[in-house]
Amino acid sequence: MFNNYLMKISYDGSMYQGWQRQSNAKSIQGEIENVLSKLYGSKVTINGSGRTDSGVHSLGQTANFVVDKTIPDDRLKRILNNMLPLDIRVEDIHRVNHEFHARYNAIGKTYIYRIKNKDKLSCFESRYYWGVDYPIDLELMKKAADLLLGEKDFRAFMASGSKVKTTVRKIHKIEIKRSDDYLEIEYHGNGFLYNMVRIITSLLVSIGKGEKELDTINKALASDTRKYTTSTAPAAGLYLKEVIYKKSI
Amino acid sequence: MFNNYLMKISYDGSMYQGWQRQSNAKSIQGEIENVLSKLYGSKVTINGSGRTDSGVHSLGQTANFVVDKTIPDDRLKRILNNMLPLDIRVEDIHRVNHEFHARYNAIGKTYIYRIKNKDKLSCFESRYYWGVDYPIDLELMKKAADLLLGEKDFRAFMASGSKVKTTVRKIHKIEIKRSDDYLEIEYHGNGFLYNMVRIITSLLVSIGKGEKELDTINKALASDTRKYTTSTAPAAGLYLKEVIYKKSI
Repeated sequence: MFNNYLMKISYDGSMYQGWQRQSNAKSIQGEIENVLSKLYGSKVTINGSGRTDSGVHSLGQTANFVVDKTIPDDRLKRILNNMLPLDIRVEDIHRVNHEFHARYNAIGKTYIYRIKNKDKLSCFESRYYWGVDYPIDLELMKKAADLLLGEKDFRAFMASGSKVKTTVRKIHKIEIKRSDDYLEIEYHGNGFLYNMVRIITSLLVSIGKGEKELDTINKALASDTRKYTTSTAPAAGLYLKEVIYKKSI
Repeated sequence: MFNNYLMKISYDGSMYQGWQRQSNAKSIQGEIENVLSKLYGSKVTINGSGRTDSGVHSLGQTANFVVDKTIPDDRLKRILNNMLPLDIRVEDIHRVNHEFHARYNAIGKTYIYRIKNKDKLSCFESRYYWGVDYPIDLELMKKAADLLLGEKDFRAFMASGSKVKTTVRKIHKIEIKRSDDYLEIEYHGNGFLYNMVRIITSLLVSIGKGEKELDTINKALASDTRKYTTSTAPAAGLYLKEVIYKKSI
């Protein structure tokens, strides 16, 4: 009897070389697989919904794994959290149908990008925010964000080094909020290309600062290259908030 | 012409094996000395006001160092912050008289201890709080704290491994505040023994939880051993807030 478990995982990415398992560096996937393999007494591999880069954080990454033992869900969560490092937490774990795959079944993702928009970052903020110590025009940024909504080819908003069948993605919504000196940009989409959120964020901030014209968005969308999207916002400000699946799972 | 500089330093202690320079581990002192030695082109050593343990944070650690070059104070601060890791920040730097020593001239210190008093710590909180998921009676804790005020022999509140001439210290004030689910204990004293703040904090919390009697404080103060002070609160919740000097410096 096999069980397919879906887990929701939060993590502080500061101490890890990203999600993906690596032979000679600490990774989130590696830490979780080590704990599961120890618990089940044989090698367990997990399927993440996707990778996150070194220094990127998660509030709701998902992964599934198949094992042939049954431990009650709430007990399993407690056991895993006792075994895992304190900066990786299982928020939820439950059994799903045998065909479920955390990556292939995902129909959307939500990311948050956090910016401190006043003064320098404190020693406690540098791993959790991008510091932009220059006035940002939020209304201009929102106008720029609106130009990105809908289904579009985002090939100019993708870092090299990833293979994808298509560079077309659909952004459902971009919410930009200010709370005192902090900005939060929330991206809802059916999927995001490699570094896409960080490349978009960088361009939105450049437009909000008046460094680039609003029209740069359209020029970038019409472009094959990264001529208009040369910079990438730092990993520290990025949080994978949620992976979306169909209700039935 | 020699200059004696006093610097105020904040740091996130998460990534370091404490303040003190070590040959084969990253330390705060080591990082700062590396930067200063590179900047001045010869080996610079700094005198900290005291050590902090691995994982302990600082809002206002101090250190002094002597060099034979003159760089304007505000420029020096900017240069150092550009060279230092982002989790170590120079908050202030200025020249002091030649006899000044960050440790010997200190007449007091202030520490903060932070506790989350509800639910488990999130993945982002584990390096910055002690998680105590059990009701704490603040009034009882304050009564216990009052018993520690004044000049007393704190030998039962000291971890082994440090040499001191006397174990007598004076605690001027202990402030305990709650803000929603978070507690903050602020300790003002003329100095603190090795692990003294963490040992006191652990006992105050035990009393606040009703695990130990209020009278344990007096028993501990009358004791030569750690019979009544067996546990030590985690490093993560501890912040060196300020080092106090005479006004004239």
